[in-house]
This record gives sequence, C-alpha cells and structure tokens, in this order.
Amino acid sequence: MHIVDLNCDMGESFGRYTIGRDEEILKYVTSANIACGYHAGDPTTMKKTVQRALEHNVGIGAHPGLPDLAGFGRRPMDISEEEAYDMVVYQIGALKGFVDTEGGRLQHVKPHGALFNMAAKDQPLARAIAKAVYDVDPELVLFGLAGSELVKSGHEQGLKTASEVFSDRTYQQDGSLTSRREPNALITNHEQAVEQVIRMIKENKVRTVQDTDIDIDVHTICIHGDGESAIDFANYITKALKEAGITLQSIGEFITK
Amino acid sequence: MHIVDLNCDMGESFGRYTIGRDEEILKYVTSANIACGYHAGDPTTMKKTVQRALEHNVGIGAHPGLPDLAGFGRRPMDISEEEAYDMVVYQIGALKGFVDTEGGRLQHVKPHGALFNMAAKDQPLARAIAKAVYDVDPELVLFGLAGSELVKSGHEQGLKTASEVFSDRTYQQDGSLTSRREPNALITNHEQAVEQVIRMIKENKVRTVQDTDIDIDVHTICIHGDGESAIDFANYITKALKEAGITLQSIGEFITK
Amino acid sequence: MHIVDLNCDMGESFGRYTIGRDEEILKYVTSANIACGYHAGDPTTMKKTVQRALEHNVGIGAHPGLPDLAGFGRRPMDISEEEAYDMVVYQIGALKGFVDTEGGRLQHVKPHGALFNMAAKDQPLARAIAKAVYDVDPELVLFGLAGSELVKSGHEQGLKTASEVFSDRTYQQDGSLTSRREPNALITNHEQAVEQVIRMIKENKVRTVQDTDIDIDVHTICIHGDGESAIDFANYITKALKEAGITLQSIGEFITK
Amino acid sequence: MHIVDLNCDMGESFGRYTIGRDEEILKYVTSANIACGYHAGDPTTMKKTVQRALEHNVGIGAHPGLPDLAGFGRRPMDISEEEAYDMVVYQIGALKGFVDTEGGRLQHVKPHGALFNMAAKDQPLARAIAKAVYDVDPELVLFGLAGSELVKSGHEQGLKTASEVFSDRTYQQDGSLTSRREPNALITNHEQAVEQVIRMIKENKVRTVQDTDIDIDVHTICIHGDGESAIDFANYITKALKEAGITLQSIGEFITK
Repeated sequence: MHIVDLNCDMGESFGRYTIGRDEEILKYVTSANIACGYHAGDPTTMKKTVQRALEHNVGIGAHPGLPDLAGFGRRPMDISEEEAYDMVVYQIGALKGFVDTEGGRLQHVKPHGALFNMAAKDQPLARAIAKAVYDVDPELVLFGLAGSELVKSGHEQGLKTASEVFSDRTYQQDGSLTSRREPNALITNHEQAVEQVIRMIKENKVRTVQDTDIDIDVHTICIHGDGESAIDFANYITKALKEAGITLQSIGEFITK
Repeated sequence: MHIVDLNCDMGESFGRYTIGRDEEILKYVTSANIACGYHAGDPTTMKKTVQRALEHNVGIGAHPGLPDLAGFGRRPMDISEEEAYDMVVYQIGALKGFVDTEGGRLQHVKPHGALFNMAAKDQPLARAIAKAVYDVDPELVLFGLAGSELVKSGHEQGLKTASEVFSDRTYQQDGSLTSRREPNALITNHEQAVEQVIRMIKENKVRTVQDTDIDIDVHTICIHGDGESAIDFANYITKALKEAGITLQSIGEFITK
Repeated sequence: MHIVDLNCDMGESFGRYTIGRDEEILKYVTSANIACGYHAGDPTTMKKTVQRALEHNVGIGAHPGLPDLAGFGRRPMDISEEEAYDMVVYQIGALKGFVDTEGGRLQHVKPHGALFNMAAKDQPLARAIAKAVYDVDPELVLFGLAGSELVKSGHEQGLKTASEVFSDRTYQQDGSLTSRREPNALITNHEQAVEQVIRMIKENKVRTVQDTDIDIDVHTICIHGDGESAIDFANYITKALKEAGITLQSIGEFITK
Repeated sequence: MHIVDLNCDMGESFGRYTIGRDEEILKYVTSANIACGYHAGDPTTMKKTVQRALEHNVGIGAHPGLPDLAGFGRRPMDISEEEAYDMVVYQIGALKGFVDTEGGRLQHVKPHGALFNMAAKDQPLARAIAKAVYDVDPELVLFGLAGSELVKSGHEQGLKTASEVFSDRTYQQDGSLTSRREPNALITNHEQAVEQVIRMIKENKVRTVQDTDIDIDVHTICIHGDGESAIDFANYITKALKEAGITLQSIGEFITK
C-alpha cells in the first residue's frame, strides 16, 4: 500500500498583510507548515492557523525561517551553526506555545526557504537544525528535501525524517531541484506534475532534466497555498493520488525512524 | 518565618549590544526574568541566560514585552486584548523552547515595562495576560505589582500570583508607584530602600509619600541588573535581609494559590 | 473657482506582501502619500511608487508612520516629542532619497494612522512634527485633519498646510471624525459621500451626526486605495467633482501660506 | 606633502543600547561614518551623531548596511542588485534628512560590514551601490577597500572615491584583508600598525603575510571607536602621523576624481 503526506506552507500573513488561501487549502492537505514570525507570520496569525489546522485535523508543523521579513526568508544569510540552532529552538518554542494553548500536538518541523535550501547542502547547518529539533522534542518529524543533508542529519540525530518532493519542480541528476533561474525549473502542466509524483511514490524514481532516472524517497509532497491555480491543483492532485490508489495521511501517523 | 523572592530582569542584550551584568547579579537573586525577543533579547542571549540561571539554581521566568525594541518596551502601545494574549503566548513559548532544550522548568512569567504597568491598571488587558499564562501552563506563577489588576486577574484565573514590590521606588496612597517624572519617585539611599522592604515583609505596610501607611503584600522584590551600583545594592540587600531573619527563596518553592 | 486636491495612501506593500491598487488609483488622484518603511513600505516599493507617481504627474508626499509594521502604524504609541521629530525627519529623508534619484520634487508630508490621529489633538506632538517638516524643507506642504492641532502647528511654524477631509467618514460637532467603533462612523453610500464633500468645498460646512452644521476647511480629500470599491469610488468622485465645477489639482500648485 | 583622512564608524547605538565612544573618538578623526538604522543606529542617535560631528568639524558620511540589526550587518546576505541600490538610497536619504535639518553637508558614503566586504569583490553589487550614491548626489565621495571592485565601480560611475586601508589588519598578496578567522589577521601592536600605515601613505606599499610587497592606494584610514584601547590608539596614531609629516584632513577637502 502506498501512503503519502501532502503539506503546504501556511500562516504567512503578517499584521494587515495577507498571503495564502489557508482556509481553502486546509481541506486538501494532511500537514501544515506554520510560519513562526521570522520570515512571515505573527502571533495572532499563528494562533488562528493552529486553530484552523486542528479543526481540519491536519498535522501541525513549525516552519522556522531566517530573520528576514523583507525578504520572506528567501535570501540566503551567512548565519553560524549556533545562530541556526538558537533561531530554530526559538521559533519551534513560539509555535508550540499556541499548539499547547489550543490543545494540539506539534507533529513536525520544516525549515523555510533559504534555510531549507542551505540545510540541504550544508552539513554543519543541517546538523545544527536537526539537533535543535531533537532537543526540543525527539518525537518531532523533521522535513527535508529528499536526499538532502538535512534528512541525513535528522536520521543521524535519531529523529524521524520525512523526505519531501516537489510536484511542480524538475530535478537534476544529483537529486537537487533545478534552479528557479533556469527556464525548465517548473512543471506548469498539472497532469505532468502529478504523473511525476505518482512515479516517485510507486517506483521511487524521477526522470531528471538530463533525461536519466534517479532514485528518490517520498514521504511528503509540497504544494503551494497561494497563486491563481493553488486550489485547483490541490483538488486535482488529491483526486489523482486517490485514483492511483495512494492514501493521503498526516506524516505523524505513518512515519517511522 | 519570613520568606521572600528576589528577582531581576535579565537577558536583555541583543546581537552585538550588551546590557546588564547578568553573570554577577545571578549570584544574588532567586528568580530571573528573561527577555523574550520583543522588547529585548535574542535567541542566543535567551539560551545563554537560561544556562546561566540553571547553573546558579535561580528560578526562570519569561519576561514578555511589547514589540518595540527601539523603545525597550517602555512606550505604552494601544494593543488589543487579543494581541496581548497572543504576544504573551508567543514569547512564553519561545523561552520555554530554551528551558526545554536545557532541561529546566519554567517557573514564572513577569510582563515587562509598559506592558507590566498597563496591566497594573487595565483589567481587560490584565485578564488577557493572565489567561495567556494559564493556557500555556496553569502551574506558572504570574508576577504583578502588589495590589494591581494583574495580580487580581491572575488570582481569578486560578494562577499562583506573586505580589512584587520595588525597593527603590516610593509609593502613592492608592498603592501605585510614584511616577518617575516626580522628584521623589526614587529611593537612592540603600539603607532607606532596604528598611522599606523589610517593613513591607514583616509588617505588610509601606509609608506613602502622603505620609500615611498602607497595606502591601510582598512575595518578591525587584532589583536592577545594570547601572553603577547594581551589584553593590544586590550584595547589600541580600545581606540585610538575611540579618533581618528573612529567607531568600525562589518563588516557585514557597508560593501557594 | 473651486479647487481641491485628491490624495491617497500608497506604497504600503512590503517585501512579498502586497496592499493597495496603486497603479489604478494613480489615474484619479492628484497627490500620493508614500509610506516610508516604518508602518509599511520598503525601499524597492518606495522607489517604484515614486516612479509611478511621476509618470502620472501626481504630487509626491512622504507618509511617515509609527515604527510598528505589525500594527500598520495604527496602534497609538506613547512616543516623546523628540522621538516624533526624529522619526519624521528620518522617514522624509528616506523618501526624499528616491524623489531625488528619480528627478522629482517632494511636495508634501502627511503623517499616517495613529501618528496622524494623535497629532490632531496633541499640541506638543503636532509641533514636533511640524518643526521636523519645516526643518527638512520649509517649502513642503503639511497635511492634517481639518481643524486639527497639526494644521494649527504647521501654520504657526510657517509651513503651507492642507486641511484634509474624509469623504466616507461622519463628523462630530467638535470637528473630529466619528470613531470607527461607532455604528454611524462610515458613509458607505457613494452619492452621500460625494454630496458631503461638495458641500464642504462649496459652503465650507459639514452636517455633523448631532445634526448641526459646523465650519470646515477643505484643501484635500482623502480616498482609499484598497478594498472592493476603491477604484469605482475614485472614478465616481472625480467625475462628480468635475460635474460640480470643482477643479482637481495637486496641492502644491494652488496652496498658499 | 602627504595628506590622509582618518575615519571611524559611529552612531551605532540603538534605543537603550549603547556602543562606541563616539564623543571621545570625534576629537581625533576627520570623517565619521554614521549608521543609518539598518545594521545599527536609530533616528535620535543619527541626529545626535550628526550634531556632534558638526561640532567637531568632522566630515559626515552615511554608513548604510544590510537590514540585519541582530547580526550588526556583518552576516552576508544574498541581496539582488536592485535591493542593494534601493537600500543604499533609502539609508543615505534618511541620514541626509538629519544633515539637512542640522545645516550640514553630506561628504561621503561608506557601506558597512558585510555590504562593504561583498562590494569589494562582487562587481554587479559594487556597481549598484556606486550608482545609488551617484544618483543621490554625484558630489559624494565613495569609500571602498583599496583595490576593491567598489572603488573601481565608483570611479567608473564618475564619483570621487576614497581608497581605505586598515591600520590593524594584515594584507594578502591579492590586496584583500586576511580573514579574521586566521590567527595572523590582526596587528595588535600599535607601533607596527602605525608603521604599516605610514609606509602605505609614503611609499604606497604594504608588506603582505606572504612576505611580499604590493602596491596600495591610501586616502583614508579606518580606526575603531569601541573596545578598550580605541581612544589610546586614536591618540597614538594621530600623533604618530603628524610626527611623520602627514596631514590629517577630511576627505572632502582634498580628494579629486
């Protein structure tokens, strides 16, 4: 039987600024990555997003980012391992505050944007993040790019890890995502995107832009919560996965070490 | 037997900016109020301050403030009750992250600066803060100005509360502190300051600037951690209290509902 | 002949966060109040908004606010007069940077949100703001609520001042706006809103919610740049004003001391 | 005749946080680089620092940095050229606000920390910064590391440029500073530090850590304003330079294109 988690970044509004169609997307996903106030999000948004996720019975994750609201946490910053550890503990703790007050349970941690990308390749950084997650709660699931240093570090640290794939991105032969600066980085055709994901799940393979097959692990699929077609695609992919006999479930319910 | 807690604000450094002689003052106090990144403090400072407090066996408290680093949380802001609740949960959660990773236990919460002062008089605000503290953990001790709405709200909420007095401030007939704008707001003489405190503890009375006596509860005394004479005064008051037969103990060890 | 300026707040996007339909509203207004990075706005947004305003030949104003991005500058803060002076100089200077690099000329200054409202009633604050504007450039026009301390202080300081009215708000007998907390604060009917404005311009009178007439000066009308009906209303009011024989012109072209 | 400018970073305090002995160091330097609120500094600090610099007849420069108060602008961030241009215009503009209100004249611009270091090697970034400075005011002097891309870009842009050297840092054969991570990065001996500088000025040569001589231009020397020995060193170097027949003068008084 094939099981997969479907996750989406959420709670990225800030003050009077709104981003994302969280309420609608929550009907489709099984895990929510909730911003923690560094790259996006504010306390009230965090609380409300936790409430909505609980209402929809969606797994709750902390989504810590770099301290760069102006850059939405997407600009790489040269932080030390200690800084990475500390800012991840801080942000998980802050979100956990709301999970506790709302009577929920924190399921996972997924670093955001540049922090996620840097931790895919930078082993010391990946280890610092994995240790932060473990030290806060060794039962948390750590999300990382499939094949990344972050997944490896989480595994070494003794955490349950979730290998994440992107339905709408193309892959390089080394398992990395094609840079968004390249013309062929994105898969805009919904059918193709879902075909790629289904093959990843059923065969653990993905066809790279170099036209070769590589092995890939898949525990969770990332979809987007804003943009014109976000809801359409969420609807499309969940139907297609079910039709392909793939069960959607929150990561915490099926992942093992 | 007379028991009292001695607390001090700490962890108020930020990045390359240093404030407070935390390391030295920790030798004297029994409880530390640690800034949580809003009015002061950053993740690394928070972690280190938690570590130092644990080494000195000092009770650890969250010290949430207004989101105003430039004003050090001292400028009153017109926040809603929901915003107050949310920003207190966020900040307690963030500090709790470090208390958890360092293997400690959070003892108390003391709002900072303008938030503390506003909550002394504004009942809805006080209630929002008390509820936030209770919702995160009903075993936490809530610090408030002796006789304040915050202490009352904490009590009504079902929290253990600590009535705080200031050794170096004069009091008004209504139990409030004399405004710092008044010439007679501060008690700069160490002996007088300590005499006032000892009388508060032993007789539950304080002489106001109107030259009358009023009743006052004392569970904890606030001292300052920066400034020229901070360490001298810490040394002086701890000795004087002991000589007066008063035991210094962390609030969590003796306070009851 | 009747002349009036039509202004709108702009450039309030921040990083990846977008607010306001600036591009469309610029076709209707004669003056643009551009956020300066404190309550909203960032350098890139400021530059682009200045460029758009110049393309549309719209008068450019600095729109300084309180340092409270999370609260969009709408939460009153207890700042000192010196802080007010300094934060206004800072923000005007920053916007002037872009006006200079784009080859434009700064026309006016309009404080934002809580700063605007506080300065309507608080004389020392109003004077500090007026002095800041004057010291940066005595030729700038200072916008303030009609009848406010800010307009008075600007006048006393030797600045040209613009008395601002709101088309969609009701007025109290003392000339202040009805609080948004009151049910009758807003005029949602477009015709009524424009009728009120036209009477203000032609008769210098407004009917208050107490059903009396009071005198009112009008040099500029504030309209909103976001919300469902913003563009419709901008279109409606500009047509209606022209049909009523009222000329729309940038404030700098007709205001005198 | 040998002339050189002596510059120091200033105005890096923030709110209640104090850094640097600005008042004392101003007696020695001929140019002040004033932080603009991004990596350090706040409006009130900026105003006061401009006032002090004018009192001491010291040349005033804007010291724009990365938007990273927590990291004091020392953590490299991957910003785009447009972002660099815009944040430099913003910060120069903001400081210029205070220079205008205080009746002074802005002399120069020196990027801070990571922005300075990145612009030493990254040509597109250097060009974006040089263009920002030029567009604000083509008469401004741009400071850059001697031999850097920033100096070259400033020159190409048509700006007057100042080649800066560090008295207390060792040099690599390619003209770059030895990384602070290397044990031999710093020259802690005051005599050696000054000898290096005097040779740079008189012979335009510096001995590298590879024990070779390289050519170096010197228009301005950077000294530090905080730390134990800052004032002592400022006193020592100014005396030693004078004794060596070197005239200290603000860069704006002698630099040519």
